[in-house]
Amino acid sequence: MRAALLLIGNELLSGKVAEANLRPLAHVLRARGVGLQRVVTIADDLAAIEQEVRVLRASYDLLFTSGGIGPTHDDVTMLGVARAFDTETVEHPLLAAVIGKKYGTRCTREHLRMALVPNGAELETTRGTLARDARDARDASDDLTIPHFEWPAVRIERTWILPGIPEAFRMKLEIVAAALARDPMRAPFVSRAVYTSVEETALVPLIDAVVQAFPDVEVGSYPKWFDESYRTKVTFDGRAYARIVEAANWFGRSLPAGSMIREE
Amino acid sequence: MRAALLLIGNELLSGKVAEANLRPLAHVLRARGVGLQRVVTIADDLAAIEQEVRVLRASYDLLFTSGGIGPTHDDVTMLGVARAFDTETVEHPLLAAVIGKKYGTRCTREHLRMALVPNGAELETTRGTLARDARDARDASDDLTIPHFEWPAVRIERTWILPGIPEAFRMKLEIVAAALARDPMRAPFVSRAVYTSVEETALVPLIDAVVQAFPDVEVGSYPKWFDESYRTKVTFDGRAYARIVEAANWFGRSLPAGSMIREE
Repeated sequence: MRAALLLIGNELLSGKVAEANLRPLAHVLRARGVGLQRVVTIADDLAAIEQEVRVLRASYDLLFTSGGIGPTHDDVTMLGVARAFDTETVEHPLLAAVIGKKYGTRCTREHLRMALVPNGAELETTRGTLARDARDARDASDDLTIPHFEWPAVRIERTWILPGIPEAFRMKLEIVAAALARDPMRAPFVSRAVYTSVEETALVPLIDAVVQAFPDVEVGSYPKWFDESYRTKVTFDGRAYARIVEAANWFGRSLPAGSMIREE
Repeated sequence: MRAALLLIGNELLSGKVAEANLRPLAHVLRARGVGLQRVVTIADDLAAIEQEVRVLRASYDLLFTSGGIGPTHDDVTMLGVARAFDTETVEHPLLAAVIGKKYGTRCTREHLRMALVPNGAELETTRGTLARDARDARDASDDLTIPHFEWPAVRIERTWILPGIPEAFRMKLEIVAAALARDPMRAPFVSRAVYTSVEETALVPLIDAVVQAFPDVEVGSYPKWFDESYRTKVTFDGRAYARIVEAANWFGRSLPAGSMIREE
């Protein structure tokens, strides 16, 4: 199962804001055996969002978007995703009911913009998919009186439309994790790392040997600059737990005596 | 002038390592009036690198790659870029001379892998493009005895092939900045921000008004969660300095009395 992430936001491309959502998403996915394989960062641009979602949703099993959902003119993700699904946005009755209840008589057209989702989108909570009918809408708006009411996440088919604000993104990841947990279990990715005092270039023959001996293990090598504690970190990744451990041990034992610093 | 960035590395997609090169590149580019418009993150995969470089170099004025250059099996960026330019990698005589001089009799085949660049690539320093002939190679290797010898950056046409390690990437950015500075001057991007205690939804009519009054200014709005100091940050970006300042001032003056917290 392969996933892609579409990061949407002028503030990311201008370097004003540091991207913070990729890593927590990657960790949630890997724990459920889903590999994040492609991340694309684009501006808050309607045409670009539409085109990118079209391409990514056709090529990956799961797509996550982050950013561009909100009440202002530059929040065009919902419409961009809708167009990529050959549809438009509609007011979701359940979201509209929840927003109406929250703001009461202060509720404006701008607040209700937050209820617009691609036609056909569904609302997800940690407990599962919410139904769309009017009674459920009433039930959900009643939930607002509950202290731990959970704002749902928006999903259309296999595309999750998530907020860009990192705190909000992380809350929604709990819903994603719950949905993946309801799927048939896939073996999670596991990872081992060996830290050594040998410089990377001198390790090449040994790394080539472990790559050849363990073709099912993904081997990475990362030299460290400006750090006295080690010179090279060699990583072992994959789904087959026993093979990962075996490859890391094999590599560690093959290092020159005294040059293994630690294993993680 | 539009730029794209290709981030290459399994460690980025797995969430093991936090990406750290986008922001410093964006800042260098914006200061020289170049907008970063697309960032793509992919694995250390030869075919993926080739395909992505083909697409991005055809669509953008400048392309930067980050990562996947080094001596090990997973460092395939040089070959991927070479193939995207319909060529192969060759040992650059100048780089080979520098490496040979640095390692002396300890120099191995693995060290010399670091001298492989796409056929046709050039070496850049803060002082300009280095020539390729043998005498220059001797001169450059002589430079190794100089305390501040500068390891050159590799460029082929308008594609810069930069290292992934953030410390090394930043060193190379000085070379990129120097190259851009030799180009005809473009107006740099400027940015202003107004911080207000008004919540984003209530700001929508005012934001729409400033967007309409200043169509040449890029207006962004960012609600802040879990921060007591302000509710919404509204940003004004573009190349026309006077217009940016005017738009920010216009917006600040139009806010409800007492709700402007600060301007930056």
